[in-house]
Amino acid sequence: MTEAPLKHFGWGRVGEGLSEAEEKSLLDRYRRLFGVADFPQVKPPPLAEIRVRPPRLSVPAALRSYARDDHDDRVAHTYGKAFPEYVRGLLGDYEGAPDVVAYPRSEAEVAAVIAWAGDAGALLAPFGAGSGVVGGADCSLDGGPYKGAISLDLSRLGRVLEVDHTSRTARIEAGIFGPALEAQLKPHGLTLRHFPQSFPYSTLGGWIATRSGGHFATLYTHIDDLVESLRVLTPMGAIETRRLPGSGAGPAPDRLFIGSEGILGVITEAHMRLQERPRFRAGGALSFPDFFAAARGVRALTQAGLFPSNCRILDPQETQNNGAGDGRSALMVLAFESGDHPVEAAFARALECCAEEGGRQEAPELADAHREGAAGRWREAFIRMPYNRERLIERGIITDTVETAITWDRFEALHDAVKKATLAAIREATGREGQVTCRFTHAYPDGPAPYFSIHAQGAHGRLIEQWRQIKCAGSEAIIASGGTITHHHAVGRDHRPWYDKERPELFAAALKAAKRALDPQGILNPGVLIDPEPAR
Amino acid sequence: MTEAPLKHFGWGRVGEGLSEAEEKSLLDRYRRLFGVADFPQVKPPPLAEIRVRPPRLSVPAALRSYARDDHDDRVAHTYGKAFPEYVRGLLGDYEGAPDVVAYPRSEAEVAAVIAWAGDAGALLAPFGAGSGVVGGADCSLDGGPYKGAISLDLSRLGRVLEVDHTSRTARIEAGIFGPALEAQLKPHGLTLRHFPQSFPYSTLGGWIATRSGGHFATLYTHIDDLVESLRVLTPMGAIETRRLPGSGAGPAPDRLFIGSEGILGVITEAHMRLQERPRFRAGGALSFPDFFAAARGVRALTQAGLFPSNCRILDPQETQNNGAGDGRSALMVLAFESGDHPVEAAFARALECCAEEGGRQEAPELADAHREGAAGRWREAFIRMPYNRERLIERGIITDTVETAITWDRFEALHDAVKKATLAAIREATGREGQVTCRFTHAYPDGPAPYFSIHAQGAHGRLIEQWRQIKCAGSEAIIASGGTITHHHAVGRDHRPWYDKERPELFAAALKAAKRALDPQGILNPGVLIDPEPAR
Repeated sequence: MTEAPLKHFGWGRVGEGLSEAEEKSLLDRYRRLFGVADFPQVKPPPLAEIRVRPPRLSVPAALRSYARDDHDDRVAHTYGKAFPEYVRGLLGDYEGAPDVVAYPRSEAEVAAVIAWAGDAGALLAPFGAGSGVVGGADCSLDGGPYKGAISLDLSRLGRVLEVDHTSRTARIEAGIFGPALEAQLKPHGLTLRHFPQSFPYSTLGGWIATRSGGHFATLYTHIDDLVESLRVLTPMGAIETRRLPGSGAGPAPDRLFIGSEGILGVITEAHMRLQERPRFRAGGALSFPDFFAAARGVRALTQAGLFPSNCRILDPQETQNNGAGDGRSALMVLAFESGDHPVEAAFARALECCAEEGGRQEAPELADAHREGAAGRWREAFIRMPYNRERLIERGIITDTVETAITWDRFEALHDAVKKATLAAIREATGREGQVTCRFTHAYPDGPAPYFSIHAQGAHGRLIEQWRQIKCAGSEAIIASGGTITHHHAVGRDHRPWYDKERPELFAAALKAAKRALDPQGILNPGVLIDPEPAR
Repeated sequence: MTEAPLKHFGWGRVGEGLSEAEEKSLLDRYRRLFGVADFPQVKPPPLAEIRVRPPRLSVPAALRSYARDDHDDRVAHTYGKAFPEYVRGLLGDYEGAPDVVAYPRSEAEVAAVIAWAGDAGALLAPFGAGSGVVGGADCSLDGGPYKGAISLDLSRLGRVLEVDHTSRTARIEAGIFGPALEAQLKPHGLTLRHFPQSFPYSTLGGWIATRSGGHFATLYTHIDDLVESLRVLTPMGAIETRRLPGSGAGPAPDRLFIGSEGILGVITEAHMRLQERPRFRAGGALSFPDFFAAARGVRALTQAGLFPSNCRILDPQETQNNGAGDGRSALMVLAFESGDHPVEAAFARALECCAEEGGRQEAPELADAHREGAAGRWREAFIRMPYNRERLIERGIITDTVETAITWDRFEALHDAVKKATLAAIREATGREGQVTCRFTHAYPDGPAPYFSIHAQGAHGRLIEQWRQIKCAGSEAIIASGGTITHHHAVGRDHRPWYDKERPELFAAALKAAKRALDPQGILNPGVLIDPEPAR
């Protein structure tokens, strides 16, 4: 374990980030966009200068080998990667730091921490790799009656425990990071094949708790479908669901915990459905006259029962922003793959579907076109994207996303409403024009998952307020247009107001009742998904 | 509406059933199996001779246009098609008849019935088409504190309300029967493509409440995946989930109600995901040296990422029983279909996967081989099968099924354990050898859904007791071998003891809490899935 520690501010580990050239090119783009020569820069405080309050909890002797109240641990577990979290970090505001960080190395130790939290009347926030973008791991007491806050870091639960080659599944600890998971499966010739953008810095348990969407665009994309069974520790005890390929026995127990965002229990391990590593590939990049034409192409091919592994579309502006086009046409990155059989026929049929909507293949002569050319440039930009934000926020540049899913019949209206609302909010909040672009991250036969990227020039000192105005406008437009407040980023605290509008009131009542049965003291992630029911 | 009424005893409508020739051939098979010349026959009482108690509830004036306490209605809603229900019907035991049958024609009328049930302290059992096989619609008070029982017949809610061609979905009332649903979709060129064996006599709401499995063997087979959104009336009010192709916003609300078997609310309508009608087909029948070889063939092709629309395997005995073989080899019925593109390549690859396990294609020269030859004979037998039972039970012949799903690594052990346990139980319970055969109804990359058919010669007067001993032995073996107590028949009352072993205790606590939040008086289907919490 010679890996550098995770940064306390920014994406990834200490030492990682944009090169000088990358940063310059990024800032040049924003200079052109906003028509300014430069941006006032604020630097985040170095780790050593960050102040946190004295811990309000005292770690019991039995937990001291894996629970700590050290300054650096507490700082590193204060924030995820949500925009307002970045801003608070930039300001050196660590008011919400947990009092203790626990790093259990076994399920028994997880249980011990949960028991201690209950005894101590402390709030308990599960923490995977800290890359959430919706404030889900926030430990602030928010005026609640908690005696303190514990961050439960699951990263020591990082092993693939068993591989079942016959059923092609594995039992895996929940705290495992994406790369370690794939590295441990690779010798078996298998892959989970779940690659969210946060892949290097997110965990299996985090994916399950937040209903993560992998980068595969169709079919097995949501983590929901990859879970065969779960183990969850609740304050009332352990829940282990049966390993089953399918069942009709009552409401699916797993589905209560998938997406439960830590409010019902702590996921400690899961049996996951795996795939063979792909051996056959076909794909390429297509240009379309406009974004809606590209969307119709996606609709045609998903409804045709083709299941591309990748089927992203980018609007002309987003294409240009990622160096994958001149901004005059929309781009589709399309790829099929299989561990078993050739996929050229599926790709050819997809090209036909797209051609009917004006989609033209770019550089069809490239064998690996979906990894080179425009598609390759987009892919490279996609992987580096998370590193941009820490550099931009220092310059007061607001970048964030609103993402959703919507049925095809309402997609165009939703798209226009979200763009209009966010662009107007940027103008109002910042006094300048900004930019909102759209791509599809996932596609289903009954609708796409549109993903909007927001770019605005904010002002230091007003960033959170400006961001909130823009985020609210986009979120309101999504909900009013019939979409979901999140397709794969989860609800956390940032999306709560719109989640409350989206989910049926009586479903919230049922969920609250279920939480009361499993977490009667209400110590687990209070305020996430439903209102806190405070500790006794 | 000139259709004949549903039979009060037996499958389908008055006038339907086995022909004399079919009945003779069926009985001949059982004569050979049990080595007897004939069976003592008991006939069920005619409808007019069945006695039910005077109704304990009095229908309020406002409900009288759609709620009745007539003899015939009450008899027709006393039983589903579970084995012990057939036996009680044969004996003329209608002790558990509902006091009132309500036929609401609108959601407002459903709400009125629910409200009346609450006011009257009556048990309320939703009823679709009455073809459930696990006692799920049972109205017996079971010593509970209910003032009476109401059967809520949803068959008047039988319309496709809206079709969204763009998203390829439809809003459909929950009481619609399978054939009406497909007939109303056909002019749109669309199909739900969900064909459980009960298709002619089951409803959309029933499929959703019980997590029905369609006859399509892979991919979109469980109704779970076809539901885009739901409307559910609970005693606390209506729940309507959003129409979404996908979402990451908290635990999926639909999944709490899919499989809830009427304990949380009454499903009144759903948006369903549809398919284009298939235009391309390829398929055939394959023989394998034995059942486990056929199973390995299924495993190979599902793990290859091929998604046949049909992929049944039958063990040699079941093949013979259905007139599709000589009992010396196992049969696979394999078919691919698509509304968009040719499927020969997928079929060819599947044949290769099967060949490696000794699978040989039968009559490859037949263009439509999966509908003719052995496959065709099996298909015909499959459709007529539900009509057998009413004839057999009159002769004291016990036929029932236990069905499950299990991961591939444990399939062979489960198969052997279930066969051994049920054959031994038949011997013990009846004093004679019986027969247990197995087929796969569905297949997943991580495991199959094995379906065991049980044949035993029982004795009139002891049928329920004998059946219970056999059913228990099979169910115990399933649970001990790691399977689920039901892949697609649901839990109802018959599977409760094993469901209780299967589902995590704390999940039951959460479900009970959710029920209390939605049905505080506990009037909906008490005893189904969880213990009743009686009306105040």
